[in-house]
Amino acid sequence: MVSPSGPTGAEGVRTSGADGADAANTFLLTGIGELTTNVAADGDPCGTIRDAVVFVRDGRIAWTGRATDAPDAVASGVDPGVRVVDAGGRAVIPGFVDSHTHLVFGGDRAEEFAARMAGERYAAGGIRTTVAATRAATDDDLRTRLAALVAECRSQGTTTLEVKTGYGLDVETEARLARLAAEVTDEVTFLGAHVVAPDHVGSAEEYVDLVVGEMLRAVVSHVRWIDAFCEEGAFTAGQCRRVLEAGRAAGLGIRVHGNQLGYGEGVRLAVDLGAAAVDHCTFLSDDDVAALAGSDTVATLLPGVEFSTRQPYPDARRLLDAGVTVALASDCNPGSSFTSSLPLMIALAVREMGMTPAEAVWAATAGGARALRRTDVGVIAPGARADLVLLDAPSRVHLAYRPGVPLVRHVWKDGEELRAAGASQEQGAATALANPPVW
Amino acid sequence: MVSPSGPTGAEGVRTSGADGADAANTFLLTGIGELTTNVAADGDPCGTIRDAVVFVRDGRIAWTGRATDAPDAVASGVDPGVRVVDAGGRAVIPGFVDSHTHLVFGGDRAEEFAARMAGERYAAGGIRTTVAATRAATDDDLRTRLAALVAECRSQGTTTLEVKTGYGLDVETEARLARLAAEVTDEVTFLGAHVVAPDHVGSAEEYVDLVVGEMLRAVVSHVRWIDAFCEEGAFTAGQCRRVLEAGRAAGLGIRVHGNQLGYGEGVRLAVDLGAAAVDHCTFLSDDDVAALAGSDTVATLLPGVEFSTRQPYPDARRLLDAGVTVALASDCNPGSSFTSSLPLMIALAVREMGMTPAEAVWAATAGGARALRRTDVGVIAPGARADLVLLDAPSRVHLAYRPGVPLVRHVWKDGEELRAAGASQEQGAATALANPPVW
Ligand SMILES: [Zn+2]
Ligand SMILES: [Zn+2]
Repeated sequence: MVSPSGPTGAEGVRTSGADGADAANTFLLTGIGELTTNVAADGDPCGTIRDAVVFVRDGRIAWTGRATDAPDAVASGVDPGVRVVDAGGRAVIPGFVDSHTHLVFGGDRAEEFAARMAGERYAAGGIRTTVAATRAATDDDLRTRLAALVAECRSQGTTTLEVKTGYGLDVETEARLARLAAEVTDEVTFLGAHVVAPDHVGSAEEYVDLVVGEMLRAVVSHVRWIDAFCEEGAFTAGQCRRVLEAGRAAGLGIRVHGNQLGYGEGVRLAVDLGAAAVDHCTFLSDDDVAALAGSDTVATLLPGVEFSTRQPYPDARRLLDAGVTVALASDCNPGSSFTSSLPLMIALAVREMGMTPAEAVWAATAGGARALRRTDVGVIAPGARADLVLLDAPSRVHLAYRPGVPLVRHVWKDGEELRAAGASQEQGAATALANPPVW
Repeated sequence: MVSPSGPTGAEGVRTSGADGADAANTFLLTGIGELTTNVAADGDPCGTIRDAVVFVRDGRIAWTGRATDAPDAVASGVDPGVRVVDAGGRAVIPGFVDSHTHLVFGGDRAEEFAARMAGERYAAGGIRTTVAATRAATDDDLRTRLAALVAECRSQGTTTLEVKTGYGLDVETEARLARLAAEVTDEVTFLGAHVVAPDHVGSAEEYVDLVVGEMLRAVVSHVRWIDAFCEEGAFTAGQCRRVLEAGRAAGLGIRVHGNQLGYGEGVRLAVDLGAAAVDHCTFLSDDDVAALAGSDTVATLLPGVEFSTRQPYPDARRLLDAGVTVALASDCNPGSSFTSSLPLMIALAVREMGMTPAEAVWAATAGGARALRRTDVGVIAPGARADLVLLDAPSRVHLAYRPGVPLVRHVWKDGEELRAAGASQEQGAATALANPPVW
């Protein structure tokens, strides 16, 4: 990948405008102490490069490699007009790919959370509280809240976001949620089969008829994926199969919520249907693990849920040792995991799930990309989107070593800089980058 | 406390300068959806007030209470020149009091962390790695790093910080660390008895002679507290007693590290000596708990350590139920807990230690103040320092409900605003405060 002669190599380096300095999404990022490319090399799945540079042109990665290997055009700053950004020896990783969120909803459930922490068990039925608040909210309410949550995700380094419907559970509201989610991301998932709608309790099959019929038709133009919650208290494997096959017939990709609260058929259903991902995977039989290992289905682990529901964590080590592809995501939602922090998911995966820091960072970037079947994100390689996170730390290990600390200092999405929540931001972006590292 | 006729009541409200609007540390904070005062009222230790206002004059709290109870002078903005800041319905809590940190050191121990996460047990001896790096660092190096960590703490809402020496372990370096720490805080602790210095291995008593003699004399003008690590691999109770009594004789207050890695005599020694706090308290006998309950010694819990060393968490519930005063602190240090995040400590205390969100927030504010025997911080009451944190959330519960999310939006220390790491900061402080809440 360090070849300067590739089709997107530095030979062709130029800027898009007459004056390169004006192109916000074209720049040379130098002085990277540790670059995580996720382009596997020499047995390192993270494709780590020390003392690296990344050349970004028109929002895409044009060249990346060791500074000393850079072709003349890159080493000299490509042309005098190209902006040079000095990372000051800090670490750069791909932007996080959060492949599982429920960001469009009304109300919150802080009281339910406090009650649960005082001893109540998490029950999927609590979803109905949010359904009532979501149905009652106006488009503008939902849009304002969604925008705030998206900004929160971005400030913490998430550059690709999946967003699910599933708090409407009637035709009109699910269509609204799909439309609003599509305003902020291309990765929208229809989750009409989240729980049986309150209007259909006791008539799950009748509700599934609605989901696969009128509801699916109302949302399909806004969404890329279909999902179903295969769990006791939600839907049976047979009901989920009906939903997922209807989605596939309508041209949607398949994802599954399963094996969160107990053993069940979710994982095997997902593998059987060739789902892109099955999410939660907390309670897995040996057969489930073997099925995942022999499939293209990603196991997406959501430790924010176990944190906030005081459930046992999924065993990532077991999955990794079996050869399963693992992703980490936030499951950001007001009931069971109201966090948008991929850095916290990484720290939890290392503390609680047997992952190494490198495996956890890979899972929150490349793993998320695989769970969305995307090749243009989750990697820092020629041709990929220039979605980059600069950490206020010399290595990605610090994301687990420094839990809770806002280490995301700069975020670029498609080569354009977003404001980040990093602790040192007060110094101002330009001078901060020029500061010497202090570790 | 809502009496307008108290000695610091609103009758006397005025601004310090000729033009009140120019006094950075005088303002009226209105529109507070939930104010945590920590002035116990009606069985609520948090002294919660809804729809509250806080009047800050010359860096101190001048008046606080329900907006509807405010005396005319406060309700009308005191005088037309006084700046009014609208919290937009958000929650305000006292600034965090982090009563236990080790922020002055050289190097980091990311590799040791990664090795531990791969299965190695935490050993106190790892401290010596940091001692070597610290001795080798220049004053300027140490000062730059310390300043960066203090800024990181402040941006996360910590307005009072204790800082320990203990990575020098020789006379010259301990004196340097005490002097540098005293540049950033009044709460400096001499921890020469952190571990036996590498130069004295096998001669612990000889090293204690040095600590209580020349080393204590070299640091005493910079420090308020003396501390000792009473643990297998560090110092015996007898050695700790010598150190702590020498410190007391030199006019210092007493703190103890104890009961972190196993059962031991640390807690009972601390209580016996009337220590302000005994910190860690992970392994406690019934006698230890009873001794704490009958004392003025605060039990300071440091869950960042258990998070980063994969040890069992202390049982806060047991302590609280026994009537022990509990504080939460970060123990920020490069070996066993390289986090400065009190919000994460709160989330961990709720997830792992049986605390309610209200108890955890109290412990990280008022509890920390008690552990430092301070009455001017940790509370929002007339006369106290105006150390305030405005959360991007409607309630303090969100600090546990939204783990990992940077919810600290604005921080005031002595009434002066610091820049915070909050996710919504990008909108700019002035307009952000005016924005409607979106939850
Ligand atoms: Zn979910
Ligand atoms: Zn300590």
